[in-house]
Amino acid sequence: MKEYLKQVKERSPLIHNITNYVTVNDCANIILACGASPIMSDEKSEVEEITSICNGLNINIGTLNRRTIESMLLAGKRSNLLNHPVVLDPVGAGASALRTNTAKHLLDEIHFTVIRGNISEIKTLAGISAATQGVDANIADQITDDNLDHAILFAKAFSQKTGAVIVITGAIDIVCNDKQAYVIRNGHPMMSTITGTGCQLSALTTAYIAANPKDTLGAASAAVCAMGLAGEIAHERLTELDGNASYRTYIIDAIYNMTPDQLEKGANYELR
Amino acid sequence: MKEYLKQVKERSPLIHNITNYVTVNDCANIILACGASPIMSDEKSEVEEITSICNGLNINIGTLNRRTIESMLLAGKRSNLLNHPVVLDPVGAGASALRTNTAKHLLDEIHFTVIRGNISEIKTLAGISAATQGVDANIADQITDDNLDHAILFAKAFSQKTGAVIVITGAIDIVCNDKQAYVIRNGHPMMSTITGTGCQLSALTTAYIAANPKDTLGAASAAVCAMGLAGEIAHERLTELDGNASYRTYIIDAIYNMTPDQLEKGANYELR
Amino acid sequence: MKEYLKQVKERSPLIHNITNYVTVNDCANIILACGASPIMSDEKSEVEEITSICNGLNINIGTLNRRTIESMLLAGKRSNLLNHPVVLDPVGAGASALRTNTAKHLLDEIHFTVIRGNISEIKTLAGISAATQGVDANIADQITDDNLDHAILFAKAFSQKTGAVIVITGAIDIVCNDKQAYVIRNGHPMMSTITGTGCQLSALTTAYIAANPKDTLGAASAAVCAMGLAGEIAHERLTELDGNASYRTYIIDAIYNMTPDQLEKGANYELR
Repeated sequence: MKEYLKQVKERSPLIHNITNYVTVNDCANIILACGASPIMSDEKSEVEEITSICNGLNINIGTLNRRTIESMLLAGKRSNLLNHPVVLDPVGAGASALRTNTAKHLLDEIHFTVIRGNISEIKTLAGISAATQGVDANIADQITDDNLDHAILFAKAFSQKTGAVIVITGAIDIVCNDKQAYVIRNGHPMMSTITGTGCQLSALTTAYIAANPKDTLGAASAAVCAMGLAGEIAHERLTELDGNASYRTYIIDAIYNMTPDQLEKGANYELR
Repeated sequence: MKEYLKQVKERSPLIHNITNYVTVNDCANIILACGASPIMSDEKSEVEEITSICNGLNINIGTLNRRTIESMLLAGKRSNLLNHPVVLDPVGAGASALRTNTAKHLLDEIHFTVIRGNISEIKTLAGISAATQGVDANIADQITDDNLDHAILFAKAFSQKTGAVIVITGAIDIVCNDKQAYVIRNGHPMMSTITGTGCQLSALTTAYIAANPKDTLGAASAAVCAMGLAGEIAHERLTELDGNASYRTYIIDAIYNMTPDQLEKGANYELR
Repeated sequence: MKEYLKQVKERSPLIHNITNYVTVNDCANIILACGASPIMSDEKSEVEEITSICNGLNINIGTLNRRTIESMLLAGKRSNLLNHPVVLDPVGAGASALRTNTAKHLLDEIHFTVIRGNISEIKTLAGISAATQGVDANIADQITDDNLDHAILFAKAFSQKTGAVIVITGAIDIVCNDKQAYVIRNGHPMMSTITGTGCQLSALTTAYIAANPKDTLGAASAAVCAMGLAGEIAHERLTELDGNASYRTYIIDAIYNMTPDQLEKGANYELR
């Protein structure tokens, strides 16, 4: 996995983010932490121009509104024209018709390089009835060792349908194209006590794939390993008085300090 | 107070927040810290649906705009129909006609379960001339032991008028319905050096009352005690180089680590 | 430099911010950290009223949109009428026509007391071809000891043209009017690994100049020294596991703890 991170640090891609106002600061700081650069812009009269000077686009539909949806479409189409990688984070797909329909509409209009969500969100996009619980995955949907094979088949089929690398994150993460799947077991359950670790991962993934254009599957897997590993490292660092707010800081710190060798050594994955 | 927090952790209510973009991340993280779940949405075409899948609604008028005001009205009315608890945080009421009028209009159209503000904001809502100084309470309005009896009478009368539990926070906090008032003396003056401790409290209060539907007065008081106690615990933790930014992190950490027993022991209140 | 900070702490100016949603929380907390008070508002129907009760206005064009641009114009003009100091932070000028044109339009319509940006942004405003790279200065533009004299001449000329104190920040900072320039060498390269240290400095500068109306040049220089010194103090505090997220916290902490004497002693500047 180390080559992917080396490329991020060497190329320092500029990442355009159209994202929610809840976790936007963390997304910017985690992009900086890994060695890339962020720019945030959601105004339709500039997004095409902004995305043109960037190396990748991260579209996150949390706190979407009619104004920003238009901007997502414009930026995504322009990125497609320029062959820039585009990531979709369908935050809360399934929680409202607007989010579900917007995510589907974006899928119709834009070719995404990577789609990253929790299992409920991805099931919703795939048209399978899922029980999204707000912005978190429903417990009934969660991927375990028992349903892992089935989940991988589902993810590969959705990759084939969309042409995107599919990233499903949870206790066990799946990153796959239509042929191969990385099963990743990095991370820590406490990551779900911070708002926006998913958003941060989507931002990080955009940086990784923008810096590794020839191997999206590998680069996305490396980003998922890096985020999970950061969650592990940050968790070890917690003292008795630390809680989710310190943990939030420590995760970004861990991304900042992560070396390619550390990622190589700490990445916990298998290829299926 | 411990039963209220136990209920939050057991029920893990999902809280819909229509709130300002300044402190939104802290609001999400403090809701997670206490054991509940946040979702943020302010787009009118989805807020009714989003609030329907939630257990409580937190309306905060900081950085309001015409678009979000419409969403507040829609979500609040829907929550009322569904008998979900709704909290109003009238940030900056009195600082502009728009904020004052919006807060009053929301009061006319929506039944609030709890209204939480500083004394200047609450006076403004009650139609009493107050001297709001930006988003902070005016020093001339502040509640002290000398004017406490008078302030409680005022708060009880405003509760009677609105049907809401009134939460007035400052050096001394008052939480009351039309009959009973909790006077709470938790907290630390340094809390006012962080942006959004009030917003965070409103978010936390929504989680507490959503998890304790049969005792809003007690649950809101428990939330106020918890926030103040977190301010005390976090303050003890400060080292020489720490300032308001570390303090911000430590307060959310303290909410994360707070046990029902710790809250019971640390809550500093009297019933009047 | 110490008198300027003393004035901030004594007068505690209220600062109106129309700013981006990426770094807004840090801007609010750094204003509080230095002893001033923030209020954020970008709704056109209230910004004139909000700015009227404030002592200074900070306009930051990051994540601008058509709605907020209108508000910037209204608030800026009102501030001019009231003789309140107004700061412009032209985030990303040069990165899109919208940002460049908006910054120029604001310059045409509003008299700014201070304009603060990186060298690429300021060159763009001055109509000199610059190569903005997203929201960061292009390396080709950076101020070094070799081109410092030339950069000062440029900045003084731009000050003469605009009537504003010009603040250009980078490895070496320049703060000047049309006659005198402070050359400031505080700061640390790691500051560029955090999103929004520039935004924070603009917010801090607004507080300093609002509290020191008779000496904008000196007050803006003091703010720049304070921010850089905070970056140095925070950097010394970093432990092995700390990264850019902890550094972000420590910088605001350092502003919080900074005494006038500490600023006086640590400020590293020369007058040219």
